[in-house]
Amino acid sequence: MAEILNLSTSTVSKSLLGHSDIGESTKNRVLELAKKMNYQPNLFGKGLRTQKTMSIGVIIPDITIHYSALILKGIIESAKGSGYRVIISESGHHHEDEKDAMNTLINSNVDGILLSIARESSTIDHILDASNFIPIVLFDKVSTKIPLTKIIDDDEFGADTAVQHLIDCGRTRIVLIREKCKTSNSENRYRGYARALTRAGIAIDEKFVRECDSMSIEDGYSVMEALLAEKVEFDGVFGATDNVAIGAIQAMKKNGINIPKDVSVIGFSNSKNSTIIEPNLSTMEQPGYNIGKYAVKYLLEEISEDSDISTNRTIELKTKLIIRDSSSL
Amino acid sequence: MAEILNLSTSTVSKSLLGHSDIGESTKNRVLELAKKMNYQPNLFGKGLRTQKTMSIGVIIPDITIHYSALILKGIIESAKGSGYRVIISESGHHHEDEKDAMNTLINSNVDGILLSIARESSTIDHILDASNFIPIVLFDKVSTKIPLTKIIDDDEFGADTAVQHLIDCGRTRIVLIREKCKTSNSENRYRGYARALTRAGIAIDEKFVRECDSMSIEDGYSVMEALLAEKVEFDGVFGATDNVAIGAIQAMKKNGINIPKDVSVIGFSNSKNSTIIEPNLSTMEQPGYNIGKYAVKYLLEEISEDSDISTNRTIELKTKLIIRDSSSL
Repeated sequence: MAEILNLSTSTVSKSLLGHSDIGESTKNRVLELAKKMNYQPNLFGKGLRTQKTMSIGVIIPDITIHYSALILKGIIESAKGSGYRVIISESGHHHEDEKDAMNTLINSNVDGILLSIARESSTIDHILDASNFIPIVLFDKVSTKIPLTKIIDDDEFGADTAVQHLIDCGRTRIVLIREKCKTSNSENRYRGYARALTRAGIAIDEKFVRECDSMSIEDGYSVMEALLAEKVEFDGVFGATDNVAIGAIQAMKKNGINIPKDVSVIGFSNSKNSTIIEPNLSTMEQPGYNIGKYAVKYLLEEISEDSDISTNRTIELKTKLIIRDSSSL
Repeated sequence: MAEILNLSTSTVSKSLLGHSDIGESTKNRVLELAKKMNYQPNLFGKGLRTQKTMSIGVIIPDITIHYSALILKGIIESAKGSGYRVIISESGHHHEDEKDAMNTLINSNVDGILLSIARESSTIDHILDASNFIPIVLFDKVSTKIPLTKIIDDDEFGADTAVQHLIDCGRTRIVLIREKCKTSNSENRYRGYARALTRAGIAIDEKFVRECDSMSIEDGYSVMEALLAEKVEFDGVFGATDNVAIGAIQAMKKNGINIPKDVSVIGFSNSKNSTIIEPNLSTMEQPGYNIGKYAVKYLLEEISEDSDISTNRTIELKTKLIIRDSSSL
């Protein structure tokens, strides 16, 4: 629109928002074109309170991950409590699909978007662009480069707590199974792992730090098989997700390793699976439902807020250590 | 766009669709403006001709059920393959929320709706009403009373196969853990259970037929604890979901019952959990991904179809027996 009218983007958006520092004739030109183009009201309506559709959009990478479903439950129930409806899209961890989903939601007239960023989203321009038109709150998988509200759990502190627990169990050679892709979650959990070891005077040994693609049970199994094939000696395993910890336990059991006698294991998430695997998996409980709840709370604040408050803030929710049989001695 | 360029709507859409009866210069003018306006391709293209938005809506009862997520994956991927986007809503198994979700989707201009019916939806008027406006295909949780296309798995045959397998293991006193609410899934699985027993000359004994609300692991656990407290003697368990079978296994193990020596157990679904529980759970694999795939296929057929073909049809997809340690002797 800016290009057609030969105006700057900021002049166009200010005109659409009715800012007083834009001349009437310019404003009229913009509004006339907007009308002609049959633009959706919310495309220019951050402030047009009366045009609300009472719906918010959610974009998540993978709907089959149980933790995502838990967050969604928190989102859906909180939104409903405020009279909002929720439209959910999946990016499949693909950049283009995330962009597509964002455009579809904006064209569906949602009042705001909750976004958990795709693993393959290398650039963030589409998020920054969209945030000029519509309130966006990031959750779970976020990027520190984006000046928007971020709702996450305290991954670094949580990972630190998990590894400290293994150290308290007398373990010193502690394997970390982490995500290959350097997402903010993955980096924060690595930092927590490193911090706990360093504090205990244990040197970080890269042969204990293993990476995998999708953090699935199968990934954890393969990583553990490789470790055992390489005859790496270890006495603790911190799986950065429950699934990789469960896969690692299955591989160790198959190879005659006793858990927790020989090796203490802890995961991260407190998924349903963690109480089905034997021995039951110690883990860090993540506040999935509450992440959803707070994501909605802050988004609705930003939808109703007219002032230019800074939305570059990070809200961390606490994780909680749950000790089960996989780590007790 | 037509107004800006002083062209007819049909000329604009033909240009966007690349029709040969529009001159090159006109086509170029249209495409250039479309580019400048940064329009989403799907907002015109195929869609403009028939007012299509190239999006379909999905309503499911509970997003945290892994099987629902699998179906959703099939839906999302198939829809994408046909250039369609997917908007997902959750009913939480509540009648009113289902109605709400349906209205929201219709107001969002989706081209069709895929619906898995909420447990608490006692009346079906809202579905019949909506089907006058928009193509609707039912999947997974359906009602035989609704004359719309239904995509389901062969629950009755699957349950029959599961129970026949327990009979083949030499079991005759077979517990069924089923859903209290008489959904079509629940009724069909009960029928399969009864059919297999009757064929084997085993009388149906209602003390073996147990009901629970949500078919969760906890439900299966409670049902089994009650059975053991009542000192009911049984040698086989058919859980109408993997989760209730897993809960039953956990309760039996806690009470010193050896599986499969004392009792053979089989579930229904082939969820991830079934390979985590020990012993690994025998089960009927449900075609979740394909249910999603076929639901989209038939919905898109009905979206593009102008003729008055009857849509009162039921498509059943096959389940498959998977034998694991919980039932081998």
